[in-house]
Amino acid sequence: MTTRSVTHATFTLERTYAAPPARVFAAFWDPEAKAVWFGGEHDGFTTTRHAFDFRPGGVESSESRHPGGFTTTFDATYHNIVPDERIVCSYAMTLDGNPISASLATIELVPEGSGTRLTLTEHGALLDDFDNADQREQGTNELLDALGAALEQSAPAR
Amino acid sequence: MTTRSVTHATFTLERTYAAPPARVFAAFWDPEAKAVWFGGEHDGFTTTRHAFDFRPGGVESSESRHPGGFTTTFDATYHNIVPDERIVCSYAMTLDGNPISASLATIELVPEGSGTRLTLTEHGALLDDFDNADQREQGTNELLDALGAALEQSAPAR
Repeated sequence: MTTRSVTHATFTLERTYAAPPARVFAAFWDPEAKAVWFGGEHDGFTTTRHAFDFRPGGVESSESRHPGGFTTTFDATYHNIVPDERIVCSYAMTLDGNPISASLATIELVPEGSGTRLTLTEHGALLDDFDNADQREQGTNELLDALGAALEQSAPAR
Repeated sequence: MTTRSVTHATFTLERTYAAPPARVFAAFWDPEAKAVWFGGEHDGFTTTRHAFDFRPGGVESSESRHPGGFTTTFDATYHNIVPDERIVCSYAMTLDGNPISASLATIELVPEGSGTRLTLTEHGALLDDFDNADQREQGTNELLDALGAALEQSAPAR
């Protein structure tokens, strides 16, 4: 790439999950619960490296191979964590070695009845036209749907 | 604090400096050049701790005591660096031990005549009403003015 560009994009997504905040929060901090919806192994997608230190100032770092043959890396720093209430992190991604984005993500959890309303606000700096705002928002929507499916699967029997 | 809140704020600031991009970029990576306008010791403000690893994935971490008697910390991660062209980093701040913000900052440098146009875009997640968007923008404006003064002081003699 010789032409540099930065596209700034902000989006907010909301979900209501039939699980209390502590269980939604666990899906972010518990490595086993997180692997069900974020990373992990599925549909030809493999996580080839994963380090995870969930604490304020801690980092998460992973490398993934995708069915299409490409490789992505994800490097996050957890800036602020309030158990069962809030996670603020930033993360950078590369695609086949090219930096494609840096983002700030804020996840807020609020009890709603016996469930949880999750609000995710993400500010992205998308680099050199490797990614675009719509794709990023769609990908994050899919992750939140996968989180919802994981919470349903792991729901305690009634 | 028992009431949690997140205020999302985005601002863009521009400056034109009478210095080529390489010299503006050096004011961000060279510890001595950076200390003139960012951190350092002045007007009763003291930096009590500073670690600085300017590379993609590297971190900068500092603690400062302010004339008013309060203490702040600054913890940054450099996500993307293109020499003389671009810096993307995120940073978190605390005030007397309370997390007050996490931010994503993008700095773009473009040659303009014999000088440089700097564009800074910052997305902030301001936490629990410890800081507000106007203050943060004003503080960043002051930093860019201080950078301009530092570049003038260090200009090569003609």
